[in-house]
Amino acid sequence: MVEDGGHAGENGIGEFDIIARHFAPLATDVSALSLRDDAAVLRPPEGQEIVLTCDTIVEGVHFLKDDPAGSIGHKALAVNLSDLAAKGARPYVYLLALALPAKPDQAWLKAFASGLGALQRRVGASLVGGDTTRTPGLLSITITALGLVPHGHAVLRLGAKRGNRLYVTGTIGDAHLGLRLLKDPKLASRWGLTKEDVAFLAGRYREPQPRTTLALALRNFAAAAIDVSDGLVGDVDKLSSVSDGGAVIEAASVPLSPAAAKAVTRDPELLEALLTGGDDYEIVAAVPEGNTSGFEAEAKSKGVTVTRIGRIEGTTGTRLLGEGGRDMKLGPKGFTHF
Amino acid sequence: MVEDGGHAGENGIGEFDIIARHFAPLATDVSALSLRDDAAVLRPPEGQEIVLTCDTIVEGVHFLKDDPAGSIGHKALAVNLSDLAAKGARPYVYLLALALPAKPDQAWLKAFASGLGALQRRVGASLVGGDTTRTPGLLSITITALGLVPHGHAVLRLGAKRGNRLYVTGTIGDAHLGLRLLKDPKLASRWGLTKEDVAFLAGRYREPQPRTTLALALRNFAAAAIDVSDGLVGDVDKLSSVSDGGAVIEAASVPLSPAAAKAVTRDPELLEALLTGGDDYEIVAAVPEGNTSGFEAEAKSKGVTVTRIGRIEGTTGTRLLGEGGRDMKLGPKGFTHF
Repeated sequence: MVEDGGHAGENGIGEFDIIARHFAPLATDVSALSLRDDAAVLRPPEGQEIVLTCDTIVEGVHFLKDDPAGSIGHKALAVNLSDLAAKGARPYVYLLALALPAKPDQAWLKAFASGLGALQRRVGASLVGGDTTRTPGLLSITITALGLVPHGHAVLRLGAKRGNRLYVTGTIGDAHLGLRLLKDPKLASRWGLTKEDVAFLAGRYREPQPRTTLALALRNFAAAAIDVSDGLVGDVDKLSSVSDGGAVIEAASVPLSPAAAKAVTRDPELLEALLTGGDDYEIVAAVPEGNTSGFEAEAKSKGVTVTRIGRIEGTTGTRLLGEGGRDMKLGPKGFTHF
Repeated sequence: MVEDGGHAGENGIGEFDIIARHFAPLATDVSALSLRDDAAVLRPPEGQEIVLTCDTIVEGVHFLKDDPAGSIGHKALAVNLSDLAAKGARPYVYLLALALPAKPDQAWLKAFASGLGALQRRVGASLVGGDTTRTPGLLSITITALGLVPHGHAVLRLGAKRGNRLYVTGTIGDAHLGLRLLKDPKLASRWGLTKEDVAFLAGRYREPQPRTTLALALRNFAAAAIDVSDGLVGDVDKLSSVSDGGAVIEAASVPLSPAAAKAVTRDPELLEALLTGGDDYEIVAAVPEGNTSGFEAEAKSKGVTVTRIGRIEGTTGTRLLGEGGRDMKLGPKGFTHF
């Protein structure tokens, strides 16, 4: 792990201290060299391929300035674990590049590391390196995560075939609502939501739960998969655009949480935003017809709810079907959330 | 490679386009999946360990806003390759996380990718993934680089023994002077530098040359090594602090470029800044006495100049010896550059 100088700042802690106090305890794998070198030295287990992914989260873009530090740490790792899960990989090690605005606060760092630590323990990963730097800009966290998958068994975005069923994990749109509620708490009453609903939706935005336990089901039964980070419709479109056909999503089949369903009942126009909004960190899988019962059973045994939402069929592009099987039109932001 | 939505911004290019146009051509390794997935799938060669490192460079901290885009691309990769070289590893693949302030400019991106591309071709590396995101903050680039080293042959920071000779590659302090000249061009006349001197020193700041070709010499002959990124004295101190002894550096032996030597002649007080300034991206190696001729010969055969600057001896801490072997005192910023 690299630190930019060991100078103790005005608040009395330097980069060395940050690493030693807060991050060294997360470096449980021997390859980390206890974060006392500029690099990690890794000997991956034989017969395994390494799945590599890298995601940055930036203050004001991927999390809110006032989000709890523990949630920010959790989210930085979770968004990467979500990509690993979609590839059917189990988490292995990760590197953390932390760009801190001046004056890192001990309590903030402690909570941040604790959010990272709780999630890495749950999935069996280890911090092995990274970089801590000061920035005159915004708080920004880049994690590079490595996962393991038996040779030749990674699940790709590419590979869905006509006739495959499309499944999605969990529920869709909660994070989108959570973000809007955090920015504008008055929406709660307009949407008829209780305090508990709001807390649930905000939690779904702040602390996405990567579907790590679904990896084996995907490897065994899915033809292709993608994690839903940029919005369900857009991400299905990415999968279908490299598949043998197009995608059809039945809007009425898309699973909503009770809180999200309540909001949509009050304001039906919200549905489009939920289906295209992003930040879900659920997984869409294309499963061959003959594998569906195996996939469903394996997912169930791991406690992951999966729901059929459509199929790959002989068209190109992605169609979203509404009431009566009619094509729903999406607004100009329908496939993006920029 | 992940993009945040495919939305075409006001200037008509979206994140998909950025990746397809500028970065896909750098994804020469098959593990990159042509950057059309959220992850890379890597099958490292047998018998090799993976050396992993990660460094962020931020506008205004590690490069200047007006630095040429090609230099910024070069530097982002070079600082990581420097860490790999210090571990004795050969470059393999890397991931690029790019946080772009609004309105990425096509010409800027093209030049940035071209700087990356020229360096990766020279060292035989491939881009395999990453993340492109917009930031309301400053331009920031995090690269995670993977290198390969035969099992058990990585050179660590840890491992120097009493009696080892300390070597450094290239020349020290050029980048420090280059940065100061870029910020305050009037210093050139005070330091008696020609236009060519200034261009050389600025180039040393903007485009550090990683000592990739030294990797084999380090593996074969060095007991420990570290790359000099935070200043020679500070980085030697990091190496000596985990060694069996302390370090002694003879200031007069530290190699200076003709341009740097000229400046020091005019202003002898500059020497301390050169020895502690940082951004050199040279390598310090601790070499057992019996290996010195082998190390020197191997370095020479690869065209890398190495110079003896001191030794590991039976004290703790790091001593800098000046004229007549007297200890030089360093100012409060002597071991840092924060």
